[in-house]
Amino acid sequence: MANKITLGRYMWERIHQIGITSIFGVPGDFNLQFLDSIFDVAGLTWVGNQNELNAAYAADGYARVKGTPGCLVTTHGVGELSALNGVAGSMSEHIPIIHVVGQTTRAMQTGHLMIHHSIGQRPDHQQYNKASVPLRFAAAELWDVETAPGEIDRVVRECVVKSGPVYIFLPLDLSAEMVDAGLLDRPIDLGPSVHEGNQGEAVEAITQAFAEAKHPVLLVDILTRRFGAVEQTRQLARKLGVPVFASNMGKGIVDETEEMYAGVWMGAVCGPGVLDEVKKSDLVVTLGYLPADTNSGGFSRKLDEATTIRIDPHEAIVRGKKYSDIAMKPLLESLLKALPEKPQHTIVKPQLPAPRVPNDKDKKNLTQSYIWDRISTYLSAGDILLGETGTANFGIYDIAFPPSLHYEAQIYYGSIGWAAAATFGADIAHRELLSTCSKSKGRTVLFTGDGSLALTIQEIGSMVKHKSTCVIFVINNEGYTVERMIWGARQSYNDIVPTSYAHLLPLYNHPDPANSYHRVATKAEFDAVLKKPQVANPEHVQLVELVVEKLDTSWRLGAQLAVRGQEARKYLKEEGFHDAYGNWGLSEEAMGGTGVSWK
Amino acid sequence: MANKITLGRYMWERIHQIGITSIFGVPGDFNLQFLDSIFDVAGLTWVGNQNELNAAYAADGYARVKGTPGCLVTTHGVGELSALNGVAGSMSEHIPIIHVVGQTTRAMQTGHLMIHHSIGQRPDHQQYNKASVPLRFAAAELWDVETAPGEIDRVVRECVVKSGPVYIFLPLDLSAEMVDAGLLDRPIDLGPSVHEGNQGEAVEAITQAFAEAKHPVLLVDILTRRFGAVEQTRQLARKLGVPVFASNMGKGIVDETEEMYAGVWMGAVCGPGVLDEVKKSDLVVTLGYLPADTNSGGFSRKLDEATTIRIDPHEAIVRGKKYSDIAMKPLLESLLKALPEKPQHTIVKPQLPAPRVPNDKDKKNLTQSYIWDRISTYLSAGDILLGETGTANFGIYDIAFPPSLHYEAQIYYGSIGWAAAATFGADIAHRELLSTCSKSKGRTVLFTGDGSLALTIQEIGSMVKHKSTCVIFVINNEGYTVERMIWGARQSYNDIVPTSYAHLLPLYNHPDPANSYHRVATKAEFDAVLKKPQVANPEHVQLVELVVEKLDTSWRLGAQLAVRGQEARKYLKEEGFHDAYGNWGLSEEAMGGTGVSWK
Repeated sequence: MANKITLGRYMWERIHQIGITSIFGVPGDFNLQFLDSIFDVAGLTWVGNQNELNAAYAADGYARVKGTPGCLVTTHGVGELSALNGVAGSMSEHIPIIHVVGQTTRAMQTGHLMIHHSIGQRPDHQQYNKASVPLRFAAAELWDVETAPGEIDRVVRECVVKSGPVYIFLPLDLSAEMVDAGLLDRPIDLGPSVHEGNQGEAVEAITQAFAEAKHPVLLVDILTRRFGAVEQTRQLARKLGVPVFASNMGKGIVDETEEMYAGVWMGAVCGPGVLDEVKKSDLVVTLGYLPADTNSGGFSRKLDEATTIRIDPHEAIVRGKKYSDIAMKPLLESLLKALPEKPQHTIVKPQLPAPRVPNDKDKKNLTQSYIWDRISTYLSAGDILLGETGTANFGIYDIAFPPSLHYEAQIYYGSIGWAAAATFGADIAHRELLSTCSKSKGRTVLFTGDGSLALTIQEIGSMVKHKSTCVIFVINNEGYTVERMIWGARQSYNDIVPTSYAHLLPLYNHPDPANSYHRVATKAEFDAVLKKPQVANPEHVQLVELVVEKLDTSWRLGAQLAVRGQEARKYLKEEGFHDAYGNWGLSEEAMGGTGVSWK
Repeated sequence: MANKITLGRYMWERIHQIGITSIFGVPGDFNLQFLDSIFDVAGLTWVGNQNELNAAYAADGYARVKGTPGCLVTTHGVGELSALNGVAGSMSEHIPIIHVVGQTTRAMQTGHLMIHHSIGQRPDHQQYNKASVPLRFAAAELWDVETAPGEIDRVVRECVVKSGPVYIFLPLDLSAEMVDAGLLDRPIDLGPSVHEGNQGEAVEAITQAFAEAKHPVLLVDILTRRFGAVEQTRQLARKLGVPVFASNMGKGIVDETEEMYAGVWMGAVCGPGVLDEVKKSDLVVTLGYLPADTNSGGFSRKLDEATTIRIDPHEAIVRGKKYSDIAMKPLLESLLKALPEKPQHTIVKPQLPAPRVPNDKDKKNLTQSYIWDRISTYLSAGDILLGETGTANFGIYDIAFPPSLHYEAQIYYGSIGWAAAATFGADIAHRELLSTCSKSKGRTVLFTGDGSLALTIQEIGSMVKHKSTCVIFVINNEGYTVERMIWGARQSYNDIVPTSYAHLLPLYNHPDPANSYHRVATKAEFDAVLKKPQVANPEHVQLVELVVEKLDTSWRLGAQLAVRGQEARKYLKEEGFHDAYGNWGLSEEAMGGTGVSWK
């Protein structure tokens, strides 16, 4: 007789086989029994979270850093729905996660029993399953032990190939049924399907278009990372030898210390000199393009199809002609082979002007213009930097990244609260990479704001419990400054609950809270804190509170709003938001209003 | 020309007209502009929350106490999805709430613009709307200003008549369009539709069945409260003069000091003497019946259709015959008129035996058997008591309630974390009732556990900010004891993040934290704390931490699990859960296993 294991065990073994070693989630009546099987899988660890939304964010953060999917487990209804917004974020941002939902037993379901967590007098226990239909790439709705292993394998593959969320719905009783352990011997095929002919044609069209251009440029965007093509992107950038721009989301994928690196091209919302470099080009090659408003300066980066090559996750569009049924990573590999050894173009190294001097440079108190400049020297190679939606993420684009800095943010989905919980997951993954020598060094660093942190603050407790060494910078500007800049600058709805961060680490039994919480209100204090040994080389979670004025902001967030037009600029001025470079650092042309109206 | 107001203002005026005076939620880019209109409506207040799930819970808690719907407002995608589990809870528990979602502009939607919070390269902005379809009674998907006021009116009516969640999806640009203010003059009809003929027949059948019975009894359940029939239920109980039982959820709807009150009938899981009283009956009249597992001792309350009258929200079933298209409240009003002035039956007053003596009565340290007994003398008339899923809610059924105590819990949906955030909303409503003299006195009291509180702990901050005077009891038993009792008593997944509650009130700038946090580890300390003036008559939020052993529990939770059968009882015993009354206080008959298997 073949060796038998429970279906629950089978599922965890499969999840472990694809490189996942930490499981996030919250226990519940309908998953407890099969949580036990996690402990039977050598190398697989239960981590857990303070609530299910945080679990989804943590699994998302884990996947971003680990390069495998993330996994969370929740219980029927109450758990799966609480996690849903986190899952939708993974869908929007193309983060592969596996969401395992422990369901009621099949007998309870067919009997329409009024088991707690249900709805109505004759409940349909699959009612919650329907809520996630628009927010997942695939689902294994397990019911029959014969087909269940194949269904699990199918959705695990879909998770990786489509790089996004999938669900496994597992009735509690079914998890205890036995399957053949030998099924595990054959690994799940995780490779994308590729139409070789189309790929060949695409490579030919790309090399030809590239050769014909006089001044081509690369624009590196986030989907290269999402679809596992970072290495190929870096090689391509070197081999082509043309100017390389990053989108906001793509910042750091190609090292900014590369000599052809030309800055963050955020449509009209660029630092000095970037648009001058852009204007020289006669062909733009986009890699993994994701032109959301927040990743394109409010749609102010306009590309002409006739002078653009888009290399997307599952297709390429070369000067308007589409090549489908291909995949980015093998396409780039094939392209790298097809290209000549030496660069075909001789383009002078982009020369960006010196950084501007902010008009608040002599202020003693801490300002956002100072934070982003100063933090460049704090960050070092190997660090993982997470940014939260709000003033933080727009400030981060001004940091000069050291090489091998891995930056992650939820720029497209933009769900506030994501960053703190995602940082917990990211740090778990980071420490796994360091402990297995997949990576030699690096800290996990978060920049968030007081408004965002409030939503998921309890996950700081998970960090402390799991002996994280994250460094958390919290910009305390008394509320939702990003919202104040859009509307209601002084309305009470943009105020938050006043919070005394000195008590946060002690609340969660931090082992050394007095030396690990740092309040910063001046530039000098900021300098001093960054030099403290425990902040430079943390052994415990560090919490650095950055007190800035309510209407202080990163210039680029103002600029992103100012390109909406005259009315937005008038509002920002009249309400008194601090504009460190004047006219939000925008060119005359951009001030014409190139963004999209919100009317 | 008629007086014109914006559609946003119209919506808030309608919401205010039905008695809502506080709005919960979180601001976001796609609702800011129409949040301003809240301030234009005299008597309407923006409250806000720390995150959207908490907002949904708070709106739910508000509705439970205020007797009107609750209202929360969120933003496109990220906000509406975060709130979804709270909304589903309101659906399950029949709590009327209005969820207003600020959507992207219509131009953004028809253009499929990649606005942040969206999914994909050509996003469908209505993708999130689909997620809540199975979790709402109605939705106004507003698009056209001509039909929008009527749509708003329609769903407000549905919210009240069906007593559950409805959605208003409001594109940002549409909220600024103008409508005729005169439309507000005609109030929305909130009365249920009733088939008078069916109602008459039902009343006749009920009075006849009742007259024919020798020993009828009433079983009061929660849907009486949900459908506004509490007063009629109380009058009926007095007029009939027969024994009155409460389900768990129905506890306190009829005052427990009424002379015919016979206790909590929780199927086989009853306190001493209750089942003896039940057995005498030959007809059970259920009012607003909701026989979920957690409201029926794991389905161990079996009713025979031939000897049952069910009076449900929209129908009545009299000894098996169904009367549809009616409504509970007008039916009860009609029934009250049809019944003779004096009780038709002469049934002796139920005599329940004295409470049992727990086997841990001599322990010095605090135990759950002591908590629930002792707290009876702390509670007083007018108090609002909220209980959280876990050991707390099962303990609460042992409290002898004073008259006019209003008890609320999420017994059917059972989403942990609900109670703390719902208490915030409940207390806002409570203070509104007190300040408008709709109620003369009472405190808001919460019993929760450390495991549950972790999920929504930041809402304690909202309480402090809004000068709540809640008294919060937190049972600290080092994790999810309710889950330990089901499975994995000593598994790490049932541990939580260790929390030092002394820092919770200071974290949120409580004005008097040292005198408002109380740690209790012994029975004597519990007695002393309950007598402190600030706990007896709080002027600020009070936090009382109740430290009990990890495997200590309320007997009734053990009993609820023990009726599942021999295996569950063996597990509870072997793991060493504390059984204060032996055999979980169950009768020999119940020990036979009358519950539903979880295999």
